[in-house]
Amino acid sequence: MLTFFYTPNTCSLASHIALEEAGAAYEGRRIDFSSSEQRSPAYLAVNPKGRVPALATPRGVLTETPAILAFVAQSFPDAALAPLDDPFLFGQMQAFNSYMCSTVHVAHAHRVRGNRWVDDADAILAMQKKVPETMVACFELIENEMLRGPWVLGERYSVADPYLFTIAGWLASDSVDIARFPRVHDHYGRMMARPAVARALAATA
Amino acid sequence: MLTFFYTPNTCSLASHIALEEAGAAYEGRRIDFSSSEQRSPAYLAVNPKGRVPALATPRGVLTETPAILAFVAQSFPDAALAPLDDPFLFGQMQAFNSYMCSTVHVAHAHRVRGNRWVDDADAILAMQKKVPETMVACFELIENEMLRGPWVLGERYSVADPYLFTIAGWLASDSVDIARFPRVHDHYGRMMARPAVARALAATA
Repeated sequence: MLTFFYTPNTCSLASHIALEEAGAAYEGRRIDFSSSEQRSPAYLAVNPKGRVPALATPRGVLTETPAILAFVAQSFPDAALAPLDDPFLFGQMQAFNSYMCSTVHVAHAHRVRGNRWVDDADAILAMQKKVPETMVACFELIENEMLRGPWVLGERYSVADPYLFTIAGWLASDSVDIARFPRVHDHYGRMMARPAVARALAATA
Repeated sequence: MLTFFYTPNTCSLASHIALEEAGAAYEGRRIDFSSSEQRSPAYLAVNPKGRVPALATPRGVLTETPAILAFVAQSFPDAALAPLDDPFLFGQMQAFNSYMCSTVHVAHAHRVRGNRWVDDADAILAMQKKVPETMVACFELIENEMLRGPWVLGERYSVADPYLFTIAGWLASDSVDIARFPRVHDHYGRMMARPAVARALAATA
């Protein structure tokens, strides 16, 4: 049995969708950021980083979105959520997911989590100011170089798709109109039509 | 044949070591940051992100350290550089590598690449000021929760080890004494004794 720790409106949505796509049996456990539950001793015992997502398995806890996404794909091979028999294509999927976590999520986080990297209030404002510009740069690269269409890897759906969907869903909050990126926008609509996405969104509503 | 694009004193060292550990046949191509070669049309044709590392394969180019590390491990299974038959342990390795790219490398980058996230000169200074604190927080977590010893995954060496070695090597430049973290420090010395590490360091000297 798997237990999935998540918080609405965070990157945990990507793993949530992947679990639904996989048909995994799991218990969802909502972590309440408004009461700082992610810093509670009970949750820090699960994930010492005090972040979501976390996936508790019979072997132990996994954290970090790209790792959970690949683990779900590997653990439920019948769901065909990753090119498991093709190291190069698997590597491209992983490169996409790495870019999401190390560059795009980080760019977004400078609007809402600036205190991770700076203490000064003026500097936090200066960071926030640049977020639309950095998010546009990221999504221009995704639009023009990375998203093959209809899915990230082309004809083949993979766990990179829920990750793109999740972060593309933050663009409006960063004052960027997703319609600037027609292929990303189409992808977003295509994802919204998937039953697994609807189930994950309903669970986090 | 593989072509590996790297720059000394960057995170490309981790993939460089992995290629050496794998016994891979590859050609190394140094990208010169001092002349902004990473932004040259020739290199942007290889990697539109304008970053290193990049690994050109007969199938196309792979980027992003965690993706390249897993690809090298999967492509050279005899080198035993990842727990390829154990999705959970592979997931733990990937979680480590994700943390390196999305949190630790990013923390460090606020000292030397602050203009990625802010334009204001005072804000860049404010960012730089906090880097030793964030790097210490990251390495306390690595020391106390993540590094099992003697290698990241315990008895089993993996591509997570060159990644830790690479970023731990940046601590001094961030005004943090690696000796504050005895287990990380020991790991660093253990890595320095490996012939593959010596070869990768010599190639980037």
